This record gives sequence, structure tokens and C-alpha cells, in this order.
Amino acid sequence: MSELMKFEIKKRDAAGRICSLKTRHGTVTTPTLLPVINPNKMIIKPKEMKRLFGTEIIITNSYIINKHPELRAQALAEGIHKLIDFDGPIMTDSGTFQSYVYGDIDIDPLGIVTFQRDIDCDIGTILDVFGTPDQTKNEAENAVKCTVERAKQSVPLKEDMLLACPVQGSIFPDLRTTCAKELGKLNADIHPIGGIVPLMEQQRYLDLARIILASKRGLPIERPVHLFGAGHPVVFPLAVSLGCDLFDSSAYVKYAMEDRMIFPGGTSYLQKLEEIPCCCPVCSSYTASELLKVEKTKRIRLLSEHNLYISFEEIRKIRNAISEGTLWELVEQKASENPLLHDAMEELTKTKNNRWLEQFEPIVKSRALFYTGHHTTYRPEITRMYDRLFQWYHVSSDVIVLLSESAKPYHLSYENVISDIFSVCPEAEVVVDSMMGPVPIAIDEIYPFAQSVFPLYVDKDTKKVGTERLSVFLKGKKVIKWNGKRTLKELEKYSHFIKPISQDERRLRSVATMQFGPDAAETLFDGTLRIVKSKNTRKIRNVYCNDEHIVSMRAADGMFTLKLAGAKRIHKRFPSPRFRVIVDTDAVPFVQQGKSVFSKFVYDADNLLRPFDECIIVDTQDKLLAVGRCLLNRLEMRSFSSGQAVKTREYVNDDTLVIMQ
Amino acid sequence: MSELMKFEIKKRDAAGRICSLKTRHGTVTTPTLLPVINPNKMIIKPKEMKRLFGTEIIITNSYIINKHPELRAQALAEGIHKLIDFDGPIMTDSGTFQSYVYGDIDIDPLGIVTFQRDIDCDIGTILDVFGTPDQTKNEAENAVKCTVERAKQSVPLKEDMLLACPVQGSIFPDLRTTCAKELGKLNADIHPIGGIVPLMEQQRYLDLARIILASKRGLPIERPVHLFGAGHPVVFPLAVSLGCDLFDSSAYVKYAMEDRMIFPGGTSYLQKLEEIPCCCPVCSSYTASELLKVEKTKRIRLLSEHNLYISFEEIRKIRNAISEGTLWELVEQKASENPLLHDAMEELTKTKNNRWLEQFEPIVKSRALFYTGHHTTYRPEITRMYDRLFQWYHVSSDVIVLLSESAKPYHLSYENVISDIFSVCPEAEVVVDSMMGPVPIAIDEIYPFAQSVFPLYVDKDTKKVGTERLSVFLKGKKVIKWNGKRTLKELEKYSHFIKPISQDERRLRSVATMQFGPDAAETLFDGTLRIVKSKNTRKIRNVYCNDEHIVSMRAADGMFTLKLAGAKRIHKRFPSPRFRVIVDTDAVPFVQQGKSVFSKFVYDADNLLRPFDECIIVDTQDKLLAVGRCLLNRLEMRSFSSGQAVKTREYVNDDTLVIMQ
Repeated sequence: MSELMKFEIKKRDAAGRICSLKTRHGTVTTPTLLPVINPNKMIIKPKEMKRLFGTEIIITNSYIINKHPELRAQALAEGIHKLIDFDGPIMTDSGTFQSYVYGDIDIDPLGIVTFQRDIDCDIGTILDVFGTPDQTKNEAENAVKCTVERAKQSVPLKEDMLLACPVQGSIFPDLRTTCAKELGKLNADIHPIGGIVPLMEQQRYLDLARIILASKRGLPIERPVHLFGAGHPVVFPLAVSLGCDLFDSSAYVKYAMEDRMIFPGGTSYLQKLEEIPCCCPVCSSYTASELLKVEKTKRIRLLSEHNLYISFEEIRKIRNAISEGTLWELVEQKASENPLLHDAMEELTKTKNNRWLEQFEPIVKSRALFYTGHHTTYRPEITRMYDRLFQWYHVSSDVIVLLSESAKPYHLSYENVISDIFSVCPEAEVVVDSMMGPVPIAIDEIYPFAQSVFPLYVDKDTKKVGTERLSVFLKGKKVIKWNGKRTLKELEKYSHFIKPISQDERRLRSVATMQFGPDAAETLFDGTLRIVKSKNTRKIRNVYCNDEHIVSMRAADGMFTLKLAGAKRIHKRFPSPRFRVIVDTDAVPFVQQGKSVFSKFVYDADNLLRPFDECIIVDTQDKLLAVGRCLLNRLEMRSFSSGQAVKTREYVNDDTLVIMQ
Repeated sequence: MSELMKFEIKKRDAAGRICSLKTRHGTVTTPTLLPVINPNKMIIKPKEMKRLFGTEIIITNSYIINKHPELRAQALAEGIHKLIDFDGPIMTDSGTFQSYVYGDIDIDPLGIVTFQRDIDCDIGTILDVFGTPDQTKNEAENAVKCTVERAKQSVPLKEDMLLACPVQGSIFPDLRTTCAKELGKLNADIHPIGGIVPLMEQQRYLDLARIILASKRGLPIERPVHLFGAGHPVVFPLAVSLGCDLFDSSAYVKYAMEDRMIFPGGTSYLQKLEEIPCCCPVCSSYTASELLKVEKTKRIRLLSEHNLYISFEEIRKIRNAISEGTLWELVEQKASENPLLHDAMEELTKTKNNRWLEQFEPIVKSRALFYTGHHTTYRPEITRMYDRLFQWYHVSSDVIVLLSESAKPYHLSYENVISDIFSVCPEAEVVVDSMMGPVPIAIDEIYPFAQSVFPLYVDKDTKKVGTERLSVFLKGKKVIKWNGKRTLKELEKYSHFIKPISQDERRLRSVATMQFGPDAAETLFDGTLRIVKSKNTRKIRNVYCNDEHIVSMRAADGMFTLKLAGAKRIHKRFPSPRFRVIVDTDAVPFVQQGKSVFSKFVYDADNLLRPFDECIIVDTQDKLLAVGRCLLNRLEMRSFSSGQAVKTREYVNDDTLVIMQ
């Protein structure tokens, strides 16, 4: 990847990310939309777009410029920024789409790359071979081969232009992945996913999701991904949630010419609208019937504005959702508006895709998870916790008392019941039969068990998945459904009074297990425990062991913040690379001053770490340097050359503990 | 109801309606929102609201005006329109909510009504007794009694002011219905549903839905219903779909004062927004961080504007959805954003509520029905057709060949299969096992069987309901799943070759049965049939019997338009009131000139008629006058004193047939 481009993750949710993308003409925040500019006819000038919609980057077509002698001459003489009259980043396409639409047109694959370079494009695109959805696999394979070959030949020509090499492969996921891998080996900068337009036209969103997933699987994670030709907001949230960063839109003006208005969930003909369901500046100034009376040229301009207002609103909606941790909710809502998008969601529930998504999914979020329909229970945040519950969680007893769904947190709404149960059978495992599945009472405060909102009545798919999870958990156990005094009597028979540890200690140990794995609790809490609770909320706040501050419990998500004393225990007990982010020697002095770890300096990391997980920072000799919070997963830490990987919290300095503010 | 108010249905969908509401100060289109104006402090003046948001009607508080000597004096001297500086309709509240919030305050229940009248309010409100959700049933009953008593005393005082009498009854549906019925007997004009604010604050949308349904069941259908104190767009679509017409919002300014921004699906603190997911004129001019820097007073103004832009956008969204016939989709999408709204949707799937809704549901719509999740299969348009399928449809044979879900219309995607089947067993009933349930091939073109979009993979609730519907339909039949030649061989055994009627004729008869009932087909098509088809689409267009034009088939929804010759047959065969709209003697000359029937002149009508159903128009002696299309159901035709009830299509004039253009 070119040193001219810096691409770094700022915020994240699902497999989506807010990144900054640096180009020679300025830095862009992604995900974003690149309006397509026709160099021959600008309905809205790029400068105006910047002012009206906050447009940061635009895309135009180098093939068209090259074909028109005047434009070509001016571009070569003065550069594309003057030609287009825009001082921000400009991307160009190469004529691939024109080849697809108009058939065999005369473009020199390497000539068009050097032309883009010579007219000073920020991002140029190779002349790839457009793969249509009706290609045979053989045809698609040849298109991929040719695309990769041209990419190989084009890369050496790019000089200081960023080069976009599109992934092709028609609707064949394996070809997409292969193509992505091949292109990923080259010194390319950006990867469009090509051949999308016919799928968008046919609303084949299931194929779209499959193609994005297959491409992302093969592509280097640190490169921006551009969904080429997908300019309708209907697909933006889904595409971003799967890791797309850039979109381009020519639809805004094409539709405007046909009197079609873009809305977040679809497109409508102006003529068919009694009232316009929009409050953008255009629609706040004109009613539908007034707009129809506006002279055609002006109307095209007004509708183009409307279409871009809506498109950029959707981009902001997505970025805001990423910041809030509610991107999945946005994706699912959108799917509920469109049955074909719904099918794409179904694809994400498949185990293979779910596991791929899980590695990018933040371990905690600042907002509660909202049920939006029958796909919710498959969200990676939930499937992950059930994997851990089945694989890591230590069930305290062979006797399980089952409580029914109730207000959250469960241990407070069932306070008296639990106290009664433990008085006769202190080792009993008390579990709530929740909408998601079983929730042991000792971990009822961790994300997303407490931080989730489900309706009173859920759909049958959710119920079925919940029941299946419950039956896995209960397998081989004696299960008693809570039924008041009768249950207590029955419980007496089963009690061996073998584990008289406090509820608080059980909570500590159980949370540690769910957060750090099966052996973490005994390491962290080995010694004399002192638990400090909040007087107001009665929640656990700080945990000391042998008078060392081991962890704090976060009120918001119920998980632990690891303190340096805790980190030392973890470091001692678990061999590398477990829990580690290993930094290059160059970075050691900085970490020892409490500076954050930049991914550029990450030597390696634990593959189990997830975004926002607690981690310990060590040097290549496995010397403990600090404790912090991951912002990236291992794949990302190793791949990104720009941006923070870990936020350092406390560091070891000359054997003195220093706490960062 | 006062003669000063005219309230008439213009468009409709679900139990929602677009109406015009005439007042002394102008006509208002409902559903709409009345911004609350504080007479002491107008953040945005009503005149500006009209210009910025298209506000047509506002609401202010007569209690506050009455309490302030200066305001009181000015209002009495110059009238409220001068005081507020607004020449459109003004509604006033009476202080009920203030009594609820501040406890026992001194308001004279009748004095406040005469005061409202004397200051020239367009719509005044009685001093009802606010019913809180935590009331005991006894307390709620007393509040209802007192409210009804005060309404009785207030009505004679109203003179030319329209009077709003709120329905109370806490969260007890039976009390709400009783209260509504009692108030409905009085000469009141508008019925707010009161006691809503605490439910909105607690997001108790299930209770809200129950209360609206219970109130609507008791209220006269021809009076506007105002959901008092529900000012957040999150509930607008649901409330409108259940028949609410008016909303008021003080939230727009209350929230603005706390830096809270209203969005279609919820509310956010400005401080918590990284980017504002909105493109209203305010949010297109300011970023979140810029807004935070604006001086407080100006910020309140700007956020109030934003909140009203969004609120009125939602009103337009709803009205547009009603025009398009997509109101349910909008309601269901909204529910997918909010688990508590989801519970309200669940309530609508109950048979009792579903049947109440069905009577208002248009028989056909101009747009396809979209699957939005597991509630879709319970939509009244679908449950109605299955009721008819089970009760009316005539199954042609004991042998049913079952085809799997496919592209629509089914008879075209299965063209060869069907032809093969009929060649060996012409009487076989060919049925598609669709996502909704069984769809006999002969009715596969009628709404919503062909006009619906489902995903490839539907949820388990939908599957279960579909399977149940299928098993009801198949009960007692020999069922053969289509399996190519093997099926054909098996079918041969069962064929008696007893019904060699054409597929076209079967389609005609089956559609007639589903649209008009079990005996309609033999009446309509008794004689020599001639079927005229479209050359392009091969669809049936016109049907003649004994050379009389009986019906046309509409391409869009697959149902029949009744021609006068068909109407005559229906009229002869079925006794009154079946299929009839009976008009008063006064209206006969107008209908005989082809004028539409106004509900004011409807004497009675067939209870089975649904909006957009075909009907025959007769006089009180059951003389056939015309044939037309219902715009209202019987309840509405008999209740509304304003607006059209039936659009006349062809009429009998001196025994000469005249066709309206």
C-alpha cells in the first residue's frame, strides 16, 4: 500500500468502521459517498456539494475525459482538480462500466492508468473486466484472470497516485475470494467490489451480501473497500456492516432526470407522491405539486439535491449508528422494509458468516441491544456469549433452578427468590430462561444479557433458538423450575452445601470466566478477596486480592477493567500470546511512558482478543509493559499501518505503577 | 355533531384515513399534528409554523390564558386568534393535564367551556378527569362518570364552538369503550383519547394500542379522534392505522429545552450525537458540534424547528402511505425499531382486533403488499382472503395437486405443469403452497396473492400460520405433491373427467366467488360466455354472457369491475341488502344522472361491503339505479354526514345504459 494513503480505524461496530482516509488532497471520513461527476455536465458542482451536503470526495470518469480532446488536453495541462474545479480528493473510474454497457470500446488498459496518474487523480482505477451475474463460471474465471493480470501490470505505473483494483468474480463466492486474495498480494491501495450494478438493478441483495462477504474474506483488512456502482441508500447499512467503506452515486442525477426521488427505503416517482415524505431543504420549500410545476432543468437540479440530501443523511445515520453501537439495529430495520434485503440478513445468520463477523464485533457497546425481529438472536454479540457460556462457563452444580423471563437485571427482580434458593442449596445454579437463551444469575449484568431490550412476545425463531440454547446448557443436569416453596423443599434434597462462597464471589468468578476464559478467575482472585461496592447501586465496583487492586467492574456493561496487579497475575499464569499485544522494540519506550500502542508497532497479538477487550502489553521478550484496552483485533493490529491498536491504561515504569488519566 | 364541522374521508388504508376537517377558520387535512403554543412564550410563532412546516392548526391552553389577567382580558376583548396571532383553526385544552400534574387546581368545569367559547376558539375541550394508568378500576370508573357528567353539562354551552370530549378510563379497555359510547351519544364533535401522557413516558405501547382500539370501538366512526398528549412520531403510524386523526406536540419545545432531538424512531441528546442523522434545513446548516456552540435561546429555537420538521415529515410519510396503501408496512417497520411497539403489533394479530380492523381495510390496493416480518401474515387483507377461501371458495375436486412456492403469478411460472395436470385430470384443484398459505391457481392473480412480495426465507411464525391455513384447506382431500411424471400417472387414477370447463372459466368463477361470495358466479356467468383477453398480456379483460357485458377484470388487482348487466343479474338474484347501497329518495334523481352517492343520503347498505368493493345502488324500493364502487363501509356510510360514499360508474337512465367517464 502506498505511503501516501493512511487509512485508520476511528470507531467501529459490527464489521463496519469509521475510518480516516488520507489522500494528497485531504483527509476523508469513511464510510462515505462519492457523487459521480460528469465532466461534461455538472448538475451540481463539486464545490456546491461540499457546502450543501458536506461532500468530501467525488468520483469522475477518466475514460470520458480521455475521449474528449478538449477535456483531455485541459486535464493534462492543468490537472483534474482544475478541470473539475474541486480541491478535495478526486477518484476516477477507467471505463470498465462503459465497456460493460456499450460493449467493446477502445481503451488501452495501461494507457488509462498512466492517463489517470498524469492528470493528477488522487485515486485511479485499473481497467478491470466487468463480471456480470449471468456469466458462466468459466467466463467469470477468465474475467478474474484478466483483471488480476491488468492489476499486476498497472501497479508499477501508479507512482504517487492511489490505485484501486476491483474485485471481480460474478456471483461466485470462491472466485471473489480468489480474486481478492490475488489482488491483496499486490501493492494496490483501494479495492472496489465490481460487477454490482446489475445486482442492484435486480435487487439481488442476497447475492450482494454473499459477494461482499467473499470479497472481504480475501482482501487485506487494512484497505478501503468501495462498493462500486451501489449508489442507493437502501444497501448502505448492510454493506457497511459487512465492511464496505466507500460508495459512489450517479443515481442521484440519473433518477432526477426521470423525476424519481430517492428515499432511505426506496425510490418513488414524484408524480406518484401525494405528499413528499421528507423534510430536506428542497422538500421543505416545495410540495409535490409545486415541484412538478418547476421547469425541467431546475427540477432536475432540485431533485438531484434532494437525492443527495437523503443519501448523505443515510451516511450520517450509519456513522452515528457506528458511534452508538447500533449499526445492526439499523441494518435489521432496513431489512424489515424490504423482503429482498431480508434474504441477505438470513445469509448472515449462517454459522460460517456469523463467525467471520464475530471477530470484528466489539465485546461491549455503550447502548443496549434492541430486538428488531427474528434475526436479532443470531447477532454476533449474542452468539459469541453463548459459545463462551457453553465452552467456558463453569456450572456450579448439577442442580439448576430455572426462573422465567423477568425485568433486568434479573438478580434484582428475583432478589428474594435467589436468597431463598441459596439458603437451602448454596451451590445451586440459578438460571433465567431468557428470550435469548439461558442466563445464569451470576452473569446477568454483563453485556448483552442485561443491556438488551426484547418485546414481551417474541417470534418463534427466537423462541426456538433460545430453547435450543437452553437445552444445550441443561443437558445432563437436574432441572427444577421455580415454583415457590415446593421448589425449596425439593432443593433441600439435592443440596450438599459444598460451595459456601458468597454470591458476590460467584459473580466475580463467573464474569471473569465469561470475559477472560475458563482459568482466569482462579488466577485473578487467588488470595484474600475484598470487594468494594457502590453504596447507591450496590453494584460491585472494585476488587482487591491480598490488598492488590485486581479489577474494577464497569457499571455500564458489567465487565471488568483489568488493573495492573490483575495484569501481572494474568501475565504470570498464561503463556504468550494469550491476552497479549506484543509490541516492537521500537515502541517499548513509548508504552513505558503510557502512550497508546499504534498498530504499526504491533508485532503480534492474541487471536482471541476482540475490539474493546482488555489486554496486556508486552515486549518481544514477553516482559509486561502495560495493561490497556484493544481497539482492534489481531488481524487488524497486524495489518493496519496507521492508527491506534491499544489504548494504554496503566503501565509499569521502573517498578512504579502509574495510572493514566 | 355540529353542522359547523364537516369531517369527510378522502383516502384510506388500514383503519387509517385522510380526512378534511372543516372549522370556522379553515379546513384542515388529517391526520395532522397540532403544535402546542404557550401563549406566554412562543418559541416559534404559529404564522411561522405555517410557513416552515405547513402547520394548519394549533392548540393552546385556555386554562393558562384564563389564569393570567392580561391574557384573559385581551382574549375576551379581541378573541384568541388575535391573541395568538394566527388566523387558522385554534384548539384549546381546558387545564385537565395541569390538574393532573399540579394536583387540585381551581378550575370551574363549565366556566372554562364558556370561556373557550367566548374567546372564539374553534375547538374547545371540556374539563375531563385525567385517568392515570395506576388507578384502580373503581377510581377509573369514577373518573369516567365525572367526565361523562361534565360532558353532558358542557355540550349545551358550546354554541358555535366545536367541542372536544375526551375518552377516559385508564388502562381498562371496557371502561374506555363504555366512556366512548356514553360520549358518543352526546352532541360532541371531536373525541380526544385522554390519559395518554404517562403511557407515552413509560413507552407502554401495548396499553396504548389496547386503549385506542377500545375507544374507537365505542366512538362514533364519523368523529375525529385526537390522541391527546402523544407528540412523538414514534407512535403516529400505529395510532393512525387504528383510526386516530389528530396529535398534539409540546414535546418539540420541551425536548428542545433539554437539547433533545426528535427522530422518527426515538429521541437523542444532541451532546451524544457524533453526526446528526437528519437533513432538515436546520441539520443541513449545522453539524452537531456547531449546534452545541449556538447560544442557548437560539439553540432552543433551532432544535424546536428540527423537532417540528421531523414530526411533520412523519405526518406526510403517513399520509403518503395511506395514499399508496402502504400504511401497514410503515407501522410494521416502526415496530421493528422498537421492541415495545412490537408488543403493540402483537395485540393486533388477535382475532377480535383483526376482525375489527378488517371491516375498514380496503379490498384492493394499488401497491403490492410487502413482507416486513412475522406480523405480516396476520394483516387483515390476508386474513380476510383466507376467511373467504375457507368459507366461500368452491374446491373443484377431491384431488388436490400441491405445487411449491414460485414466481408470481403462479399460473404463468407453472404454465406447462398445469397444462399437463389438466390434460390427465381436468377437475384437479391445483394449489400453490405459498408463504401466506394455500393459493388455488384459479385465483392466483387476485390481491394480495399475486400482489405481494415475500423473502425466500420467512420466519417460523409465518410458516406455521401458512401451514395451518394449508391443512385447513386440504382437510379430507387427496393431496398429491407435484413430482413430475409420477404425479401425472397417479392423477390418472383419480380423474373422472367430470368438469371439462376451461381454465379461463374456472378462473372467472373462482374470482367471482372470492370477490362476491359463493353463489355469485352462477348468477353472473349463467349463459353463453365470451371471454375477451388482452393480446399482449393474455390476461382476461372483459366477460360477456349472452352478449351482455357482465364484468371486466382489472389487470392491477385481478378482481372484477361490475358492469350494469352484471349488476342487474346480481340485483335480481340476491335479495336486499346484499351488495346494495340503498339511497334516500332525495338522492335518486342525482344517482340517475350518474352523480356519486354522498354518505349523507345513504339509507342503508350491505354490511359485507368493504371500501373499494363493487356495489349496486338502489332506492328504498330496491329499484336498481346504478352500479359503482364503495369508498366507505356500511358503518361509515350510515355515520358520516359529509363526503362521498360510492363512486357511481354506470347508471340506469330511462332504460338506457350510460357509462360514466
